[in-house]
Amino acid sequence: MITLSYRHVTLKSGFLYEKQMLNESVTMKVVYDRFYDTGRVSAFRCDWKEGEPKRPHIFWDSDVAKWMEAAAYILQKRSDADLEEKVEAIIDEIEKNQWEDGYFNSYFITCEPENRFSDRERHELYCAGHLMEAAVAYYEATGKDRFLKLMEKYALCIEKAFVTEKTAKFSSPGHQEIELALIRMYRATGNKRYLNLAKHFLDVRGYDTEMIGLRFPAQTQIHLPIREQTEAVGHCVRACYMYAAMADIAFETKDTELLEVCKTLFSDITEKKMYLTGGIGSTRLLETFTIAYDLLNDKAYAETCAAISLMFFAQRMMQSENLSVYADIIERILYNGMISGLSLDGKSFFYENPLEINLNNYKRFPSPDHKERFAIPTRAEVFSCSCCPPNLNRVLASLGNYLYGYETDTVFVNQFADSEAEMNGMKIIQKTDYPRSGRIVLKTENIGKLCVRIPSWCANYTLNVPYYMENGYAVIENPGREVVVDLEIRPFLVESNPEIYANNGKVAVCCGPYVCAGESVDNIENLHSLLIDGNFEASWTYDEALCGYSVSVKAFRKKEQKDLYSRYTETTEDFLLRMIPYAAFANRGESNMCVWFRVMPYSR
Amino acid sequence: MITLSYRHVTLKSGFLYEKQMLNESVTMKVVYDRFYDTGRVSAFRCDWKEGEPKRPHIFWDSDVAKWMEAAAYILQKRSDADLEEKVEAIIDEIEKNQWEDGYFNSYFITCEPENRFSDRERHELYCAGHLMEAAVAYYEATGKDRFLKLMEKYALCIEKAFVTEKTAKFSSPGHQEIELALIRMYRATGNKRYLNLAKHFLDVRGYDTEMIGLRFPAQTQIHLPIREQTEAVGHCVRACYMYAAMADIAFETKDTELLEVCKTLFSDITEKKMYLTGGIGSTRLLETFTIAYDLLNDKAYAETCAAISLMFFAQRMMQSENLSVYADIIERILYNGMISGLSLDGKSFFYENPLEINLNNYKRFPSPDHKERFAIPTRAEVFSCSCCPPNLNRVLASLGNYLYGYETDTVFVNQFADSEAEMNGMKIIQKTDYPRSGRIVLKTENIGKLCVRIPSWCANYTLNVPYYMENGYAVIENPGREVVVDLEIRPFLVESNPEIYANNGKVAVCCGPYVCAGESVDNIENLHSLLIDGNFEASWTYDEALCGYSVSVKAFRKKEQKDLYSRYTETTEDFLLRMIPYAAFANRGESNMCVWFRVMPYSR
Repeated sequence: MITLSYRHVTLKSGFLYEKQMLNESVTMKVVYDRFYDTGRVSAFRCDWKEGEPKRPHIFWDSDVAKWMEAAAYILQKRSDADLEEKVEAIIDEIEKNQWEDGYFNSYFITCEPENRFSDRERHELYCAGHLMEAAVAYYEATGKDRFLKLMEKYALCIEKAFVTEKTAKFSSPGHQEIELALIRMYRATGNKRYLNLAKHFLDVRGYDTEMIGLRFPAQTQIHLPIREQTEAVGHCVRACYMYAAMADIAFETKDTELLEVCKTLFSDITEKKMYLTGGIGSTRLLETFTIAYDLLNDKAYAETCAAISLMFFAQRMMQSENLSVYADIIERILYNGMISGLSLDGKSFFYENPLEINLNNYKRFPSPDHKERFAIPTRAEVFSCSCCPPNLNRVLASLGNYLYGYETDTVFVNQFADSEAEMNGMKIIQKTDYPRSGRIVLKTENIGKLCVRIPSWCANYTLNVPYYMENGYAVIENPGREVVVDLEIRPFLVESNPEIYANNGKVAVCCGPYVCAGESVDNIENLHSLLIDGNFEASWTYDEALCGYSVSVKAFRKKEQKDLYSRYTETTEDFLLRMIPYAAFANRGESNMCVWFRVMPYSR
Repeated sequence: MITLSYRHVTLKSGFLYEKQMLNESVTMKVVYDRFYDTGRVSAFRCDWKEGEPKRPHIFWDSDVAKWMEAAAYILQKRSDADLEEKVEAIIDEIEKNQWEDGYFNSYFITCEPENRFSDRERHELYCAGHLMEAAVAYYEATGKDRFLKLMEKYALCIEKAFVTEKTAKFSSPGHQEIELALIRMYRATGNKRYLNLAKHFLDVRGYDTEMIGLRFPAQTQIHLPIREQTEAVGHCVRACYMYAAMADIAFETKDTELLEVCKTLFSDITEKKMYLTGGIGSTRLLETFTIAYDLLNDKAYAETCAAISLMFFAQRMMQSENLSVYADIIERILYNGMISGLSLDGKSFFYENPLEINLNNYKRFPSPDHKERFAIPTRAEVFSCSCCPPNLNRVLASLGNYLYGYETDTVFVNQFADSEAEMNGMKIIQKTDYPRSGRIVLKTENIGKLCVRIPSWCANYTLNVPYYMENGYAVIENPGREVVVDLEIRPFLVESNPEIYANNGKVAVCCGPYVCAGESVDNIENLHSLLIDGNFEASWTYDEALCGYSVSVKAFRKKEQKDLYSRYTETTEDFLLRMIPYAAFANRGESNMCVWFRVMPYSR
């Protein structure tokens, strides 16, 4: 399917809309202010001098670029003079400081001009990619092409350094991203050179001379040519940005072999290496994928950016395959492992999104010099490595991208949200208060076939019109004026594959698209002494403050005892476990938190 | 009670006897050969020159001294010209190289003579202590006092440096041990100066000027004066050697205040910080105690030496308190967390004794430069830090120390083993094939009151004579010629305090004094997919090859599934879990291993 651009979609209410509004009204400003304070904005002036504070950093351009991209998405929906002025001011600086040959990187221009394109690990092409994405977004949103022209010039400079003249000292980016950007540039301009350059950066991998002597080439996915990669390895964000670009290329060039590689990698992630929340990355050591089924909860890395990168990958796969699994994964990420990165007030962030917080982990080691590292238990307003906050900015500002797809006269409803969209002369109005209820009313115009995703979490659903199931979509031929879909939203228990060591004997509670979590603040300190009843009983209610369902679950509590070890007896007492949406955890101070609880088996 | 020296006890058969014979016939030689090969023995010649291989190391004296101490215990039981010659040869070198003022340390004399007594962290007094213990043992075993005289001279040199003239640049040992040694010297010679010096090294702690600027004074237990220490902290072996010495001093000086401190520390360890196997130390980071109830199984440090040190502590506590808990802990350690450090063939060793081996832990991190450290999964023949092997030598050679205690005409039977003992004109013959059965026949002479420990693991027991229970002992007044005690030995399930995060929802199987373990080699790779039936059913048999009980346990196995996450169902199949004595794990190649298994609760 062709996934419909946010530009043709209007979100009107509901969870996604609310998060988008929070981003526009709060988070965009918070992020800009932090970037301003830390010198990221002024770095574009390229006038920092040795000895001054706020030395520019190699990845600062990318931070600001993602924020600019988000600003563009917002400006497409409504004018905002202040926002536009801020973006224009940065573009001014880029124009002023860009080198004659098109090169622009505020860090290298300012601090190490002699070292441009000399070290693949220094995020140069990554920064370039984000600037290009921002430029495309700004052009598409506003029609103004100044920024795009500057970046097209930069792209040609890069083509020269890496392809034509090969003056660069490496051949593929150490942090993938530019591939996605170049494909967007191609789509926006029609200039095939950008597509070819994106393809070049993918095809060159695995043959790199840089690989020689590298201790861990898989970290940046250069251990093998891309077509020979069958397992998701290395740095998660780099991996999924690359896989997403591969899926784009497979779609654009009708490359079925490459598509098969993408399918294998997508399955490897989503069937063996993904947290229930859609988070990926099981260790903060190098921020990598580890081995299959290695999904420790308190050690989860599950970076906000990594969840976003998997969403990008799923979205690109959808172009070539009309399977609901892609939108299922996107929904899982949107409602859980991505939005958990943002506090409910929109002002602070998680880089890591663990599925368990055990405050004892931080107290374990008495020596100040010997600590095991765990994710921070409360969101922070500033990170020195600040990739996630502006990534949230741009994704939230462009959530419309994920709702619909189409193919000739067929329309796909991938996500549920009160919204309107137009495409190819067709129109769809989705009336719903989803996720507060599962009733979705679809009014269509000129649509020949309507495909409505039935979420994999939904055990019971009804439609008011004849339909058949295909690839996870309910297909309605000639939908007429009104289709009503009722998805039953209620809590249910999930178990994980027995190969997942950390979750053996445990269950998680989900409610509709939400993964639930229990926090000590609502329960008891020792969450691990609780067992959820396998004869599942729960009550639930949509909690406006938490942006999702609160669920009360029948559970048992192992009684306290004095002895360290004693003969096994089964002394439990009833306990009502209060759960909240996972994404809303850590909004009420430090607290133990747990997604996977032990289960008291229901039968023998 | 007065704990009876091994010198007055003859072990005749059974588990302890077999391990003692294995030590004499195999392990003693293995350890000596390794020490010879690595230069530890020749280091006593003090003629190593810069540039030569096998540079002496600060702790080598202690390694060899522990082996010498073990040799002494063996020589007390039977003559062995070769063994005696080896010991005498080392004493020759000590005599030859000892400095005029009594100082001896092969490392400092050879490599850094100018730096003696300048750095508390360099194991100098620790080495001195072990040499003194060896000297006392050799004197008591053989009557030959040459070595003892040399060490008495060294003790006076130390007294001068640390007390009289205070020329030493620190005031208390960085690694405790000399305190225990000095108390033994006092007991062997009657010279109170040694007792006072031991007391000095304890009393000076917590006021040390060395503490200033130290990041983690608790690591070596100098964070507080000893009488203010209420929690077991820091390096486990150092801690328990010190606590044992404190208990000795409390006993020798009738210091009830100090005894209370010891009781508090003993409870803190055994009620909050001890593994089921008697192992202590929850992290290899600094080899320390961590916080209460922090007892991760795969991350267990549980050094063999630490188990031994806790046994020493328990043994010293017994002197002041006739409570069976001390002998219970000693039995737990003897049959589990200590002897696990030695392979069944007596030739290789564990330094760390984890309660879980998950081979995936070693594969988790794809980068060669980023690894989480876990205990090695197979025993090694050589360690560069080789404290544990000779510690096993000396403990196994003196197991007789742990069997009996007495007080006027009362005799305490603390451990069960086929044996004979004489004390104070009283005699006891213990006939039993324990632990193969729980029948213990005690023939006594001149004993007014016989106190037989009823192990805390034993739910059912009978005696053929009238008795009453006191402090965990079955007390028989005027025992007459024969007392028959029957302890029921059968498998049972143990659970841990709900505060132990790692063991929640899990049970362990014990059988008599043995903790059991399941290994993949007998079962399946994924041990964590198994659940032991809470309606416990098991069959058991004593396995001669494994030196303990093999137990087959009714269990369930979670069926394999493809999906990473799915709706909770209870799909298990029956599984017979084969378990072996914990101490016998890792004797049949690399294997996953687990002590704590999930339990399928027996009722609702």
